[in-house]
Amino acid sequence: MSLIEDLQWRYATKKMNGQIVPQEKVDYILEAARLAPTSSGLQPFEILVITNKEILEKILPLAHGQRQVVDASHVLVFAAWDNYTEERINEAFARNNEERGLPSSATDDYRNMLLKMYLAKPAEENFTHAAKQVYIGFTAAIIAAAEQKVDATPMEGFNPAALDELLNLKEKGLRSVLLLPIGYREAEKDWLVNMKKIRVSKDRFITELK
Amino acid sequence: MSLIEDLQWRYATKKMNGQIVPQEKVDYILEAARLAPTSSGLQPFEILVITNKEILEKILPLAHGQRQVVDASHVLVFAAWDNYTEERINEAFARNNEERGLPSSATDDYRNMLLKMYLAKPAEENFTHAAKQVYIGFTAAIIAAAEQKVDATPMEGFNPAALDELLNLKEKGLRSVLLLPIGYREAEKDWLVNMKKIRVSKDRFITELK
Repeated sequence: MSLIEDLQWRYATKKMNGQIVPQEKVDYILEAARLAPTSSGLQPFEILVITNKEILEKILPLAHGQRQVVDASHVLVFAAWDNYTEERINEAFARNNEERGLPSSATDDYRNMLLKMYLAKPAEENFTHAAKQVYIGFTAAIIAAAEQKVDATPMEGFNPAALDELLNLKEKGLRSVLLLPIGYREAEKDWLVNMKKIRVSKDRFITELK
Repeated sequence: MSLIEDLQWRYATKKMNGQIVPQEKVDYILEAARLAPTSSGLQPFEILVITNKEILEKILPLAHGQRQVVDASHVLVFAAWDNYTEERINEAFARNNEERGLPSSATDDYRNMLLKMYLAKPAEENFTHAAKQVYIGFTAAIIAAAEQKVDATPMEGFNPAALDELLNLKEKGLRSVLLLPIGYREAEKDWLVNMKKIRVSKDRFITELK
């Protein structure tokens, strides 16, 4: 199936059946998120992969009782850097230059430009920028799941501060941004599964300037 | 090729050769963005597809002289709603219910919840939320391009206020968020094309809570 067919196949699954997603498919979905592009290649986020039932039961009320959190096979928590720091930026560039066999100074001009830009901004603004990068990895994961015929439910609706506390994210310098339960649909109990997918018309969505 | 292979194939093309992308591939890339999921299905953004050389020459200095803007085949401008309004939210729900053959009141509870939530927030906060949705469609477009073996250069680095003015976006209630020049690489003049793709290690990127 092509990407377009995968996008037509997927939907925000409302009811999952508890079936376990094979590890190689989970790995594939995570790999898509890892390979996704990000601003300056900094990859300012991490993913927590949660299968621990006790933790998931505690997440359930923080996600407004959305039962996919406990009916899914795995719940992916996408958490962004709480700030861009000198240490994080330097580490990313050091890694890149080392792996490319370049001197550590090869990217100094660009690195210094980024340091100057990010370190001058408030943490909240930098976090917002990092959170936007999360959406890129998140989308890659959603598409990877669809390609693998794994269902997924993209979720913005949860209490991020409470989740950060539950998962001790603050001490890791992270803040939760998005949840992605993955698993398999329980079609006969899912009110959305047979609904027509609705999108804005091409005419309204696209403007050509020729 | 699989999604993972497409993600490995793609890179932020630094030099394009001016070759034109066939219309069916452009349509495919735009269709991926149109089918991408968004929060509550509101699709709070539009895409401008620019091939007009005069306009592109004017965009060039607003994008810090990044020459992909003029060497690409098409430049996609992703522009988000400047705010969530009652009219926009109501229209999206009316369209969905009509296309699904449901009474217009079928989604009143959910629609009223969204109205209460968004209308209470400042425009800037709502725009930031809409801008995050742009990243989802943007990522789908990047992946669609890679699947079609079309090169693309994801760009955050431009002057959005000046671009909004050039393209009269304010009067459409839109604000530019991201640019995506698409076209074909000029490999022998592209310093990045043969560089190893670097990503953070799986160990650093993923934490399992079993």
